[in-house]
Amino acid sequence: MNIMNTDFYQLTMANGYLMKGIADKIAVFDLFFRKAPFKGVYAICYGLSKTIKYINEMKFSEEYMNYLQARNLFSDEFFDYLTHWKCKLTIRSIDDGRVIFPNEPVMEVEGPLIQCQLIETYLLNSFNFPTLCATKANRMWLTSGKQPILEFGLRRAQGPNGAMTASEAAMVGGCAGTSNVLAGKKFKIDISGTQAHSWVMAFESELESFRAYADVYPDSCILLIDTYDTLKSGTPNAIIVGKELEARGKKLLGVRIDSGDLAYFSRKVREMLDDAGLTYTKIVASNDIDEYIIAEIKRNRGAIDLWGIGTKLATCYDDPALGGVYKLVEIDNLPKLKIASNVEKTTIPSKKQVYRTYNGEDFMTGDILELFEKDGLENDVVYDPLNPLRFYKITNPSRIEPLLKIKMKNGKLIEKYKDWREARKIMEEDITHLSDASKRLLNPQKYKVSISKSLHELRTRLIEQHVKEA
Amino acid sequence: MNIMNTDFYQLTMANGYLMKGIADKIAVFDLFFRKAPFKGVYAICYGLSKTIKYINEMKFSEEYMNYLQARNLFSDEFFDYLTHWKCKLTIRSIDDGRVIFPNEPVMEVEGPLIQCQLIETYLLNSFNFPTLCATKANRMWLTSGKQPILEFGLRRAQGPNGAMTASEAAMVGGCAGTSNVLAGKKFKIDISGTQAHSWVMAFESELESFRAYADVYPDSCILLIDTYDTLKSGTPNAIIVGKELEARGKKLLGVRIDSGDLAYFSRKVREMLDDAGLTYTKIVASNDIDEYIIAEIKRNRGAIDLWGIGTKLATCYDDPALGGVYKLVEIDNLPKLKIASNVEKTTIPSKKQVYRTYNGEDFMTGDILELFEKDGLENDVVYDPLNPLRFYKITNPSRIEPLLKIKMKNGKLIEKYKDWREARKIMEEDITHLSDASKRLLNPQKYKVSISKSLHELRTRLIEQHVKEA
Repeated sequence: MNIMNTDFYQLTMANGYLMKGIADKIAVFDLFFRKAPFKGVYAICYGLSKTIKYINEMKFSEEYMNYLQARNLFSDEFFDYLTHWKCKLTIRSIDDGRVIFPNEPVMEVEGPLIQCQLIETYLLNSFNFPTLCATKANRMWLTSGKQPILEFGLRRAQGPNGAMTASEAAMVGGCAGTSNVLAGKKFKIDISGTQAHSWVMAFESELESFRAYADVYPDSCILLIDTYDTLKSGTPNAIIVGKELEARGKKLLGVRIDSGDLAYFSRKVREMLDDAGLTYTKIVASNDIDEYIIAEIKRNRGAIDLWGIGTKLATCYDDPALGGVYKLVEIDNLPKLKIASNVEKTTIPSKKQVYRTYNGEDFMTGDILELFEKDGLENDVVYDPLNPLRFYKITNPSRIEPLLKIKMKNGKLIEKYKDWREARKIMEEDITHLSDASKRLLNPQKYKVSISKSLHELRTRLIEQHVKEA
Repeated sequence: MNIMNTDFYQLTMANGYLMKGIADKIAVFDLFFRKAPFKGVYAICYGLSKTIKYINEMKFSEEYMNYLQARNLFSDEFFDYLTHWKCKLTIRSIDDGRVIFPNEPVMEVEGPLIQCQLIETYLLNSFNFPTLCATKANRMWLTSGKQPILEFGLRRAQGPNGAMTASEAAMVGGCAGTSNVLAGKKFKIDISGTQAHSWVMAFESELESFRAYADVYPDSCILLIDTYDTLKSGTPNAIIVGKELEARGKKLLGVRIDSGDLAYFSRKVREMLDDAGLTYTKIVASNDIDEYIIAEIKRNRGAIDLWGIGTKLATCYDDPALGGVYKLVEIDNLPKLKIASNVEKTTIPSKKQVYRTYNGEDFMTGDILELFEKDGLENDVVYDPLNPLRFYKITNPSRIEPLLKIKMKNGKLIEKYKDWREARKIMEEDITHLSDASKRLLNPQKYKVSISKSLHELRTRLIEQHVKEA
């Protein structure tokens, strides 16, 4: 990502902070989202490690500054600041791949106000969509019973880079590979693909097209069987070619169905393949699949071994934006609060730590936000951040885990960049600690994110103070 | 876009075509979509001119080929072909910025099968999202009564490039500017922005923060008035600063409302500003706006002068993928057809021209697909491509316009690259020829796309032939 990929107001504000002499005040900002995507209760965190690496390396180019200079809005002091940019930020965040919930900071950025401000847009862009897409892939992967899912979304993605981001994030969420060659190369992801209808149509007959493909790719032959008629033409022709491959000591790897009733067709195709002795031939399904369709096909005893998922995954079709935000919570050691007419938008002030509690079976039982300075959970009574009338007592957690870890201190990386493979490993472990009730597609059980007593009291005091002043 | 941003199967098919000696057969492919987005009936075409330029310039790098070579799947002949790649394609397409409809080709690509195949993914990626986003912007722009709309979606976009694509396409659809600095620079788009809540919170008081902003930017001061209380605090403070600006011979450019009931607040804020003599101060609205919200605010007599639209525009939230496809329609001068169990997916064979008809008031009355070889509309009876029982007679069109124009011939550009500005101009003219009934948000009137009698007869003959053979 280019540093110029930022909202213009970050620059006008940064210049303004300098002009007004408050650029170096020490601020703390929280990164969080307010609503879990896809009518679920959780998300899979992704994008933070890459962002921190980028922040550590960021520089403002001459070309960039010339463009801004031409606008006659910015001070010499501002360009001087950018020219001599030296990152002084301290960042604490949760690990990529972890299960995260609404209303808890997944990152806290601390440092000179101007620096905290200038990274905002980049941070949001590189957290929002990767996290959204990792979450979508995770829902599909869990619903399939952890079967292999291939990400096929490049042609429908929101720009070429939307596709790249999707390919990478989908791997964190549970995918097994992608069709995107560049993503394969750049992120070292397995790439795969079969053939398109145009292949089948380019030959005189379907059978001839299948024979041609099997001849060129005898070891990786997957045949697309729905160009003319899946059961009457595609499957019988695939079986003929499968038997011909057998005669050469090879195996037909798979057939792909891309239209029609996938549950019914896959059952029938499975029967026909099995009757012909091609019990090893896998069935691949594609065509606007998402987690709900996977669930329906499973309920209808579909016989699908492998899923090719494009549009619904790469664009996160039914909920295509995660509303992650980045809010000032402290400046000059003073806690800060934004009050909103809708209570969900009232922020939670001050520098914090997030504690995750687990029960005796090692399932997550709730996350609690506490003032950072307390260095631990001070009190076992905690409050719903949206309504303090809902409060409860934490009862004997088997363990309490602080989630925000120091990643950068004063502009120096404390933890080196971790790629999608490490996030994937973390996800695979972490997701087993989330109850099935919170993972189901329909009416999942809400997960409690609470604020501590001290945080509740501080927030109440600040709200009262604002009401008094207004 | 990088040439490696392609689906892997394009490469395996291309290699297979070479191995089977059919790579140089002359093919024709159609680019089209099947369903208009956002429950509408039309789309604004965008991305084609850039795509054609790219196809004209494409090359396969050493690095690319090394990556592929390592997979041990491809023939030497294939790498030789890529190394000596010379584009021989002929492309006819509609102009960017034109109003387009489902089931009509917006582009026909003709040339060696292998070349037509290798550009597929790129073509789809660079048509689908830009067209979708230009269409979304267009709906918002028309609903607002052509008021200025600023695109603010970078933080929620699907990757940094998703944001860039959105910023550019939104300008084609009707936007007036963007917050994205890089998009501003790269595409020469006006950039703008106000300030965030963090600016207001970074100062001791809201009034102080407003004074500070007005002091640094006296000529472009827009104040965010909803941090604490829009009517009780934000607006009165903005008025104080507005009057102070007046005393310095300056004008408060605007105020921005980012939460609450935008219709009600904007009316009240307008009253308060007017009462204070700040009749020139504009009201900017943001906060999850889309065309439906714009329509509601207008119905509720909201007093908004300028719209800041992020998420809903940049991700095309309610319909985040256009299902554009690219289908083989002819090979070796033989028309080709893909038959599908759902009739919408049965393709329309053969090389074609699209004719747009207009009535006496110069409104578009229907588009007709005809065999290219006819060089004009042969017969005035035309058929619904989804159901030949629906057919009708074209009655005295005032003019008939062929839409697909030659853009590249045998790999040589016939028309040079046109940027978003030219597409925008074309859109502004073209959209006035589409009836209001087809542009309304609720139950818009369907627009007829028909196939000619010759095309209908050819298609029927091919379907019968397939049925006979199966």
